[in-house]
Amino acid sequence: MANSRYLASRHVLDARQFSRGWLEATLFPLARELQSTPKAALPHSLAGKSLFYLFYESSTRTKVSFETAVSLLGGTTAGIDSQEHRPEDELLEDRIRVLNQYSYDFILVRYHEEGGASRAAAVSEIPVINAGDGPGQHPTQALLDAFTIWVEIGRIDDLHLALVGDLSYERTANSLAYLLAQFRNIHLYLVSPQLLRLRQEVRDYLVEHGVSLYDTRDLRAIARDLDVVYLTRAHSARIDHASRFDEGPTCYGLDLELMDALPRRAIVLHPLPRGEELPVDLDSDHRIACFRQAKNGLAVRMALLSLLAGGNVLL
Amino acid sequence: MANSRYLASRHVLDARQFSRGWLEATLFPLARELQSTPKAALPHSLAGKSLFYLFYESSTRTKVSFETAVSLLGGTTAGIDSQEHRPEDELLEDRIRVLNQYSYDFILVRYHEEGGASRAAAVSEIPVINAGDGPGQHPTQALLDAFTIWVEIGRIDDLHLALVGDLSYERTANSLAYLLAQFRNIHLYLVSPQLLRLRQEVRDYLVEHGVSLYDTRDLRAIARDLDVVYLTRAHSARIDHASRFDEGPTCYGLDLELMDALPRRAIVLHPLPRGEELPVDLDSDHRIACFRQAKNGLAVRMALLSLLAGGNVLL
Amino acid sequence: MANSRYLASRHVLDARQFSRGWLEATLFPLARELQSTPKAALPHSLAGKSLFYLFYESSTRTKVSFETAVSLLGGTTAGIDSQEHRPEDELLEDRIRVLNQYSYDFILVRYHEEGGASRAAAVSEIPVINAGDGPGQHPTQALLDAFTIWVEIGRIDDLHLALVGDLSYERTANSLAYLLAQFRNIHLYLVSPQLLRLRQEVRDYLVEHGVSLYDTRDLRAIARDLDVVYLTRAHSARIDHASRFDEGPTCYGLDLELMDALPRRAIVLHPLPRGEELPVDLDSDHRIACFRQAKNGLAVRMALLSLLAGGNVLL
Repeated sequence: MANSRYLASRHVLDARQFSRGWLEATLFPLARELQSTPKAALPHSLAGKSLFYLFYESSTRTKVSFETAVSLLGGTTAGIDSQEHRPEDELLEDRIRVLNQYSYDFILVRYHEEGGASRAAAVSEIPVINAGDGPGQHPTQALLDAFTIWVEIGRIDDLHLALVGDLSYERTANSLAYLLAQFRNIHLYLVSPQLLRLRQEVRDYLVEHGVSLYDTRDLRAIARDLDVVYLTRAHSARIDHASRFDEGPTCYGLDLELMDALPRRAIVLHPLPRGEELPVDLDSDHRIACFRQAKNGLAVRMALLSLLAGGNVLL
Repeated sequence: MANSRYLASRHVLDARQFSRGWLEATLFPLARELQSTPKAALPHSLAGKSLFYLFYESSTRTKVSFETAVSLLGGTTAGIDSQEHRPEDELLEDRIRVLNQYSYDFILVRYHEEGGASRAAAVSEIPVINAGDGPGQHPTQALLDAFTIWVEIGRIDDLHLALVGDLSYERTANSLAYLLAQFRNIHLYLVSPQLLRLRQEVRDYLVEHGVSLYDTRDLRAIARDLDVVYLTRAHSARIDHASRFDEGPTCYGLDLELMDALPRRAIVLHPLPRGEELPVDLDSDHRIACFRQAKNGLAVRMALLSLLAGGNVLL
Repeated sequence: MANSRYLASRHVLDARQFSRGWLEATLFPLARELQSTPKAALPHSLAGKSLFYLFYESSTRTKVSFETAVSLLGGTTAGIDSQEHRPEDELLEDRIRVLNQYSYDFILVRYHEEGGASRAAAVSEIPVINAGDGPGQHPTQALLDAFTIWVEIGRIDDLHLALVGDLSYERTANSLAYLLAQFRNIHLYLVSPQLLRLRQEVRDYLVEHGVSLYDTRDLRAIARDLDVVYLTRAHSARIDHASRFDEGPTCYGLDLELMDALPRRAIVLHPLPRGEELPVDLDSDHRIACFRQAKNGLAVRMALLSLLAGGNVLL
């Protein structure tokens, strides 16, 4: 059950706002249906609707995914990129107030600081969608990650998953962990340098919701037990620095040996862009699901926008 | 009556080109009508039409306002942002000549130097709209400012208005002053540091057209007499420098005390983005009209483009 | 006949892939027909189709030309500009793989290194169009250049043409030379500083295909014999440096004297943007065809996209 303070919001701000019932009975089936519909036969459920993206931080992947989703459903997109303005030019709230004077149907906000999307939502009658707020969250990424697990594994309960990399600053890991907390018998392996551990507030929430947490710095040590490996950038400057303080064996990425250890029905997810943690020469292994995951992102965003446009409450 | 050398132009270059008759009988009523029409019922008067924006200087607000206006009337937009090219890359005139080979219906030009839009218009068969030319003009901003006064006060004649801030470089103040000169019994209080006074050529034009001008550096001293306060950025580096040379009491922004002095039926305009001259905590005062002004901008631009598209002569 | 290794490609990568038969019987007639069709009567042959541009290098001219072409034929455009991402952000191939998960119909790629478009095509089911790959090629520019010659001179065989400027790094010159090699009795004057001569591999291909090549550094010396002058930027830093090593008279641009020497039915082409090599005060001379050339670019791109959308094989 979703955290009650987010219930029935018209905004999409936080992965904790969704209930598993709504995911499994409403969002995911619609996403699957839209994904299997040929382009020319897609419903024009966004005809006459328009999405405005307001980005304070660059976001080519999320932007393109939303823009494509809107266009496929017959809507239009306009917006302001991070190159076109500086945060100090104008108050975020003033931007949102002006957009509320226009006739947009969705505002997609990426902000460079945690809480940006919530600040936007506080002054907006128009639904605000959080496309990433600094180290905070990226809830639609969590939706597509969970949808990928649901489609590829067939369930989200009873899973052993590893979150790998920089778990302190990586908002996609935060958001997915929050979303998984809705499900039963979740075993979450947190594979990160000591200095980049998952934040305490996220851990508290997970434990409170019955998720089993295990910390390690060596993906190899647990590979045999996993259903899902969720990789993130493992060669950033931050990771390189933090790794110097690690003791004992460490491993934050894949290689052939690790793929051998991984069960045959496991899947490897990655939000992209990838670094050396996911070598290109492993791409032919069908367990590497990152491009199917990108495809699922399009479907999930089409489904989400359709539901928002239809006045459906998000539960 | 509009200055004859601008009469019947197909371009929108200068606030002096419009007659009050055309504003009051044609543009403003159409803007009001479009504003009160639900989105889904708006006429698609720009169907098959396309606007090209060519920006040599960043302009997120004006760009978004025009883009939204075009889209709501069924047209499309394309363009080049200031980030995508450098002025030295290609002659402005060559850009315009090439766009004239394509099939655009309007060219929206923002240039970093005064006269840019006129240079563009000189080589263009397609209507050119000036979206700001350095310290020159921004005529569609003046149209929306005047429309806001017309709607909110009910008239433009017989008014006491204060233009506040950097009146030397602020093109929106120039353009509004030119437009007000069409009307009767206009009292214009020019509230600026001595070094940033309204330019002499603008003053000459206003006096010649019967506007009464008063210089002051203290908005407080005149607040009780005003119908309209037109604020502009009062905390730029330029203002800060110029203010050092001011003597006596100065005031270029609002506070609670000033709001108390301001008549209850007065309105406060601001082209946005705002600085400290318009504190956020005054927003709940209904006299602060800046967001309604932004909304009016959309309506005025829809009306203007509709008239241009219909082959109407601007008088 | 087109080089067999490019035959029947669904991608547009290299000027060598087109046969003269296909140009003269299919592409050029369709471009001419589309050019003479009023905007409102153009076929919506791209309805429901969408083009994605992926630029690693700025390209306002090519982008606008394609975007306009797509829009006029009823399609839509989305994309990523060079300002929005850095090449090191994500592998070119990963970008293309993700776009292949979406529903685009064409991917327009500009890359900063030779071979970028071919790398993209190697992992793409969706047609890739090369919009310039570093010093490599720009095949659609060659198509529009050849189309302009075909329309204005009435033939492409039996011509004396000068390619002028930096022939070593200028991909438009490479691509046009490759395309001209399809035609009979071509005399190509290569007018460039010694250090910026046409690359040996291009020369070898031309000679092998029967093109007569002549090197010179003085456009004046050959002006009387020319049907076509193809100018490129002659005042770049590279040209200025290279020119210091030239001996004897040199001339890489036009002036009145040269225009007098040029035959009355000759034409002057330039891919734009121009520099001092094509003085603005010569524009009134009808032989200066650069703006008609830009117009032809729109027609050729409309024709090319229509053929690709219709599943036509490029021969």
